[in-house]
Amino acid sequence: MVGKRAVFFISDRTGITVETLGHSLLTQFDLDFEQRTLPFTDSIARACAVVQQINDTNRANSARSIVFSTIIDDEIRAVLHTADAVVFDFFATFIGPLEQELMVRSSHAIGRSHGMINSKLYDVRIDAMNYALHHDDGGNTHRYDQADIILVGVSRCGKTPTCIYLALQYGIYAANYPLTEEDLLGGRLPAPLRAHRRKLYALTIQAERLARIRSERRPNTRYASLRQCQYEVSRAKGLMERVKVPMSDTTTMSIEEIASTLVHERKLQRRLY
Amino acid sequence: MVGKRAVFFISDRTGITVETLGHSLLTQFDLDFEQRTLPFTDSIARACAVVQQINDTNRANSARSIVFSTIIDDEIRAVLHTADAVVFDFFATFIGPLEQELMVRSSHAIGRSHGMINSKLYDVRIDAMNYALHHDDGGNTHRYDQADIILVGVSRCGKTPTCIYLALQYGIYAANYPLTEEDLLGGRLPAPLRAHRRKLYALTIQAERLARIRSERRPNTRYASLRQCQYEVSRAKGLMERVKVPMSDTTTMSIEEIASTLVHERKLQRRLY
Repeated sequence: MVGKRAVFFISDRTGITVETLGHSLLTQFDLDFEQRTLPFTDSIARACAVVQQINDTNRANSARSIVFSTIIDDEIRAVLHTADAVVFDFFATFIGPLEQELMVRSSHAIGRSHGMINSKLYDVRIDAMNYALHHDDGGNTHRYDQADIILVGVSRCGKTPTCIYLALQYGIYAANYPLTEEDLLGGRLPAPLRAHRRKLYALTIQAERLARIRSERRPNTRYASLRQCQYEVSRAKGLMERVKVPMSDTTTMSIEEIASTLVHERKLQRRLY
Repeated sequence: MVGKRAVFFISDRTGITVETLGHSLLTQFDLDFEQRTLPFTDSIARACAVVQQINDTNRANSARSIVFSTIIDDEIRAVLHTADAVVFDFFATFIGPLEQELMVRSSHAIGRSHGMINSKLYDVRIDAMNYALHHDDGGNTHRYDQADIILVGVSRCGKTPTCIYLALQYGIYAANYPLTEEDLLGGRLPAPLRAHRRKLYALTIQAERLARIRSERRPNTRYASLRQCQYEVSRAKGLMERVKVPMSDTTTMSIEEIASTLVHERKLQRRLY
């Protein structure tokens, strides 16, 4: 009988690109895989060790391993292809046709896609992340003029991770403001938000999911009770609708989906590409 | 004369996978590209609008656009291929051979790779991120027993972004502890760290780069001066060497590189794949 299929993600640098690409293909199959990432495979010697590891795994599993690779160096890649595995070679597959289309040779330089190529752009990213951290949870509202977007919603609806992801992935300056019980009772847009109406975007969530999330942190509290969550979510939604702030329901959305929806819908100017 | 080449990243969901793929290839060329991401291209109608946009861009640029696509639906993909562009079709290229190797048909379900497939795993990720936020900058040192890793270093050497990235990408619980002037004068491992020696990892950085980073936030201060940075970095390095804490120099490393190096070197157990 064939065991779990082993999948190797092989990279000459971080392995992040190859994992992203490999995952997007593997998620198309309802199978369990035994996944291993082997980053920094940047020498012939390491490639030989990788081949050995793949072949040993094949024997242990009685099945041929699947290999995804973003190795750039031709010689290292050649070693990898000697493994008894099916190799999905992202670089080799696309770089030739791309060179042909662009009518130039590629640099074959490794580590460019998640390395620090441009330190100015890199600083923007870190700066955007610091902005998210210092303008989290209603902090420093007097600096909202620097925000590209301000997320509004009840506690634990996904504001903070979304702001951080917007910074990391897109270099966008995102602040977030939690709607407190006082805000919800007030029934008006909270004072710090009024001057920034066009930057506001509300996140909402199903009360049941919110109660589960809050319960993980503070079980058996009023804060985490379904009744309290229902109350807050319904007041918050009502308020946001009344003051005409656009809104998304994050219940079944990942951070990536919320963030890319915001960039797309609000036509946010990204500083990173 | 041919203008800047336009590059389109087309996805039926967030566009994150297709951008990752495209960037990793484009960074191999020392050319400027005019990049545009068109996420959520999930209907025939939207695909037609995308084709129109590509063809208009071709005319404006007097050059054929380059298209990277991770569209999964066969009909939508067929529309995309009618554009007058060179299309790098990630899904079409790899899914067939992968189906053959696995001897099953793929689900052709969209939105799996950056969507919320498994809400338990997803909660781990958010929980790890909250851990990083609440154990940032020496906070809550009494909960260090829950950490997978504790980063140590002087202020602004890259600890916080690395901790957050470890949480987001790998579901790893990472705390960080800033070495204060008092710690540096003390010459011993700071008290809160002593019980967790095996989890410690030091980040260091060149004093010149540190001074530039600090100057962005607090220009013309003692904190940001080259002399102060030199002092802190050299004391911190000496201390970490003396107490035998492993160390990496982050000066030319991206967050992704630091994080993946840690996972790899320290053999950290990831909770996400």
